[in-house]
Amino acid sequence: MGIGSSSSSALTISTPNPTTLFPHKSNSALSTLNPTTHNNYYYNIPQNLLLKKPTIKTMNNQSSSSSISPLKCGEVEVRETQDGNTTIPISDVLNLKSDLLQKLVYEALVWSSLHGLVVGHKSVQRSGSVPGVGMVHAPFALLPMSFPQSHWKQACELTPIFNELVDRVSLDGKFLQDSLSRTKKVDAFTSRLLDIHSKMLEINKKEEIRLGLHRSDYMLDAQTKELLQIELNTISSSFPGLSCLVTKLHRNLLHHYGELLGLNFKRVPENTAVSQFAEALALAWKEYNNPRAVVVIVVQTEEHNMYDQHWLSEALKEKYPFIFILFFCGSCASLYIFLNFVIHMTGGQAVAVIYFRAGYAPNDYPSESEWRARLLMEQSLAVKCPSISYHLAGTKKIQQELAKPGVLESRFLENKDDIAKLRKCFAGLWSLDDSNAMKDAIERPELFVLKPQREGGGNNIYGNDVSETLLKLQKERSEELSAYILMQRIFPTSAPAFLVREGICHQDHAISELGIYGAKRRSSLMTKAVT
Amino acid sequence: MGIGSSSSSALTISTPNPTTLFPHKSNSALSTLNPTTHNNYYYNIPQNLLLKKPTIKTMNNQSSSSSISPLKCGEVEVRETQDGNTTIPISDVLNLKSDLLQKLVYEALVWSSLHGLVVGHKSVQRSGSVPGVGMVHAPFALLPMSFPQSHWKQACELTPIFNELVDRVSLDGKFLQDSLSRTKKVDAFTSRLLDIHSKMLEINKKEEIRLGLHRSDYMLDAQTKELLQIELNTISSSFPGLSCLVTKLHRNLLHHYGELLGLNFKRVPENTAVSQFAEALALAWKEYNNPRAVVVIVVQTEEHNMYDQHWLSEALKEKYPFIFILFFCGSCASLYIFLNFVIHMTGGQAVAVIYFRAGYAPNDYPSESEWRARLLMEQSLAVKCPSISYHLAGTKKIQQELAKPGVLESRFLENKDDIAKLRKCFAGLWSLDDSNAMKDAIERPELFVLKPQREGGGNNIYGNDVSETLLKLQKERSEELSAYILMQRIFPTSAPAFLVREGICHQDHAISELGIYGAKRRSSLMTKAVT
Repeated sequence: MGIGSSSSSALTISTPNPTTLFPHKSNSALSTLNPTTHNNYYYNIPQNLLLKKPTIKTMNNQSSSSSISPLKCGEVEVRETQDGNTTIPISDVLNLKSDLLQKLVYEALVWSSLHGLVVGHKSVQRSGSVPGVGMVHAPFALLPMSFPQSHWKQACELTPIFNELVDRVSLDGKFLQDSLSRTKKVDAFTSRLLDIHSKMLEINKKEEIRLGLHRSDYMLDAQTKELLQIELNTISSSFPGLSCLVTKLHRNLLHHYGELLGLNFKRVPENTAVSQFAEALALAWKEYNNPRAVVVIVVQTEEHNMYDQHWLSEALKEKYPFIFILFFCGSCASLYIFLNFVIHMTGGQAVAVIYFRAGYAPNDYPSESEWRARLLMEQSLAVKCPSISYHLAGTKKIQQELAKPGVLESRFLENKDDIAKLRKCFAGLWSLDDSNAMKDAIERPELFVLKPQREGGGNNIYGNDVSETLLKLQKERSEELSAYILMQRIFPTSAPAFLVREGICHQDHAISELGIYGAKRRSSLMTKAVT
Repeated sequence: MGIGSSSSSALTISTPNPTTLFPHKSNSALSTLNPTTHNNYYYNIPQNLLLKKPTIKTMNNQSSSSSISPLKCGEVEVRETQDGNTTIPISDVLNLKSDLLQKLVYEALVWSSLHGLVVGHKSVQRSGSVPGVGMVHAPFALLPMSFPQSHWKQACELTPIFNELVDRVSLDGKFLQDSLSRTKKVDAFTSRLLDIHSKMLEINKKEEIRLGLHRSDYMLDAQTKELLQIELNTISSSFPGLSCLVTKLHRNLLHHYGELLGLNFKRVPENTAVSQFAEALALAWKEYNNPRAVVVIVVQTEEHNMYDQHWLSEALKEKYPFIFILFFCGSCASLYIFLNFVIHMTGGQAVAVIYFRAGYAPNDYPSESEWRARLLMEQSLAVKCPSISYHLAGTKKIQQELAKPGVLESRFLENKDDIAKLRKCFAGLWSLDDSNAMKDAIERPELFVLKPQREGGGNNIYGNDVSETLLKLQKERSEELSAYILMQRIFPTSAPAFLVREGICHQDHAISELGIYGAKRRSSLMTKAVT
């Protein structure tokens, strides 16, 4: 799908089919939420975590590995996670012979290393700042998992509607300020973002070219079979690069071993997220209409997921080698850097597009310099991806406000079909002003997730902690209640999986989260589509 | 060039031109010998080592880095090595601005990481045995260096002649046994190889399909401007995979920055070593004529250069996905593995080709099992790359024997032009039986290299150690003298270079070694070329 000047398109990371294969949010092993072990997040994105407390057992059976590659040397460790209730290894469930499994894991590790499916390893100094140092393969699921095609199609169809919604919400400054006014009081970070937003409202700043690179995350509720949205990321949507590689890895493995596995590689849908994101950046750059202007990618000082960003930059460079790309460190607490950036913005090369892969968390603003830089960028003529309005439109509080009856209809959307489609994927979302919801959550905390106004998901509260936190805040009559929203807890089906991390294959049951990438470029400057 | 059934072809790793660019043996930073620091070898292959004792100076000048990528974050360290006699930085010599240099280094590091120009880092456990774990970019020279086209052409023309010579020497069992008879007494490793060779002579074993994947290494003598052979590798010629990537890296950098650097990417010759090596392996497999037979790659238990091997395997798989490739660990001191291999050889799948990336050093044979395995492989019908005869034909002692007046003419070659071409590239080579050479070497040790009968180069003796060792051995009337040969020391020109290792760029003067890959497949079974 192309990206029109006033339309949006779904950039899907993979297209599943009804029976065997599935698309993943970021990549297969980076994509599943496990509410019970939420502190195990990796690079700010959810991943396949173990559903059961693992009792590790080495499955590597040398006597049956005579016909595989590698033989003895470089042997791959395969661990079975069992809960004591069953003794059937997952490889048996999947009808996968031990030697074939070893061969697949080994080949997948080799493929990942040769083709840049890598991340920086946190244990190695400089691995988050210098490319090429301290690399390890990105964690991945060995094989694609099944996902119903109808739900995948549903998610794809939702993408342009969500993109349009974000755009319209971004234009309603009063809605953003009002909805977040109570959050502002208790959340210093959101407060600073709102300050910038206010300043833009004061000077009546209009963003004539708007660019959103989003990822909407869903889970499939096992009981109701409904596709429910977890969150919509409007800033720093990660893994467009590495997720494409995971698709290629899966297709490659199935191309060679699909017959043995009973899986057809053609049923793993192609994933063009990275090239489409690059294309969207390039189109915004073109529309800015200054051939000497640069694209700035704002990144964190320490970024172990840097290769995902480099793949996007590579995709942009490959097609548009004349676009100068600048990696700028968002959180360098140095006035020098800040001033340097000012020179960039005003003097030397103009900045056409600022793409944020940082700036979504308080840690990205260790000093006032970063806030001044963010403000300066917002004030500039550059296309911001995202603008402060797009950024705020992706907050959880806004997600919850939009889910309130009548809000979509009264303020943002006209098309009834579109509204119905969105409603269908909204999970239960409540403000803590809602006393009924509060009561329910205290009584049956297992059915809820308590979400603070923070990006990344790692701060969510589950289980008994939900009722404990709510009771504590209620007792203290704390303003802090406004910092949270309540969300219906979704229980997706789990399925056997092989999860590979640091060269070791873990067999376990995993749940899936589906992420659909979407790019939107809207311009007030042009009326017809630019391709 | 194609690979004919009774002809050979040069597989060059890069084609230089008269003025600016140069081909390298393995890859640009892995290619230069420095006799004075010979213990600094990396992965068993020579590399660009520092010619001067380094006094480190950080060249990173933030005030001039405003227009580069990355800005501040992920900044690349550039170190200048100076000898105190000069204060001119190499970047100035090369007319390279500091910000452009930083940008080039950064981009080269990113490119290497995304495109599999990687090795295992020795400090990380399992990085030599499990793919995807503990990776770091392979050390490389940032830019290609100049090499005279005429000498490169000369080296290419020598390749088929050397390949033919190796083949003919391999067929002369008596010559191999006689030439190495004294080495046998003092070198246990060569002795074991000769034992296997003897057994093959006893049973009159003929290798009907012979496959050689060689790399002939040269240096250009600065004074005489002569191209002189350092050694000819007939076993485990390393870096066909990574060297191709270095060529791609250089071409890619020059494609984007060549104009600024005054270097034309088109003048960096294409490097097809890995695909041609893969093609040669496939042709041998085809000729074996059993579609179910496998290719076995014998590797070391710990191999930090595994990705070079995987690139070759990948190239083979890509073109011939039906060939089953087995990585077999050469030095697993386990009778089980040995027997397992026997089963492979005789029972299940037949082995068409055994390609050795191990077995060239005593450490690869920690127990009798490995020697039995080597013997068994030699006895089998599989095509060995190399056979024991090819292996022995590449020893330094044989290199020295072949350089003796009249040996080429009387036993191995007829074509006078070919003989003259070989002679021209022979450096001075002497047995320690040669009392004149001994005397000269003791008096002027700086003009000689004392080479033991060991692969890898790391055991060579230089400088005063030459005379000391010779005097000691002479005094003891040691038989060990036979374990060494004397070689003329070559003094190549040095040139300014940027050597990148572990994410840090070192500026220094470097000397180059040119490696030309050559593949030879000869068959008694067929008379016409197979393409």
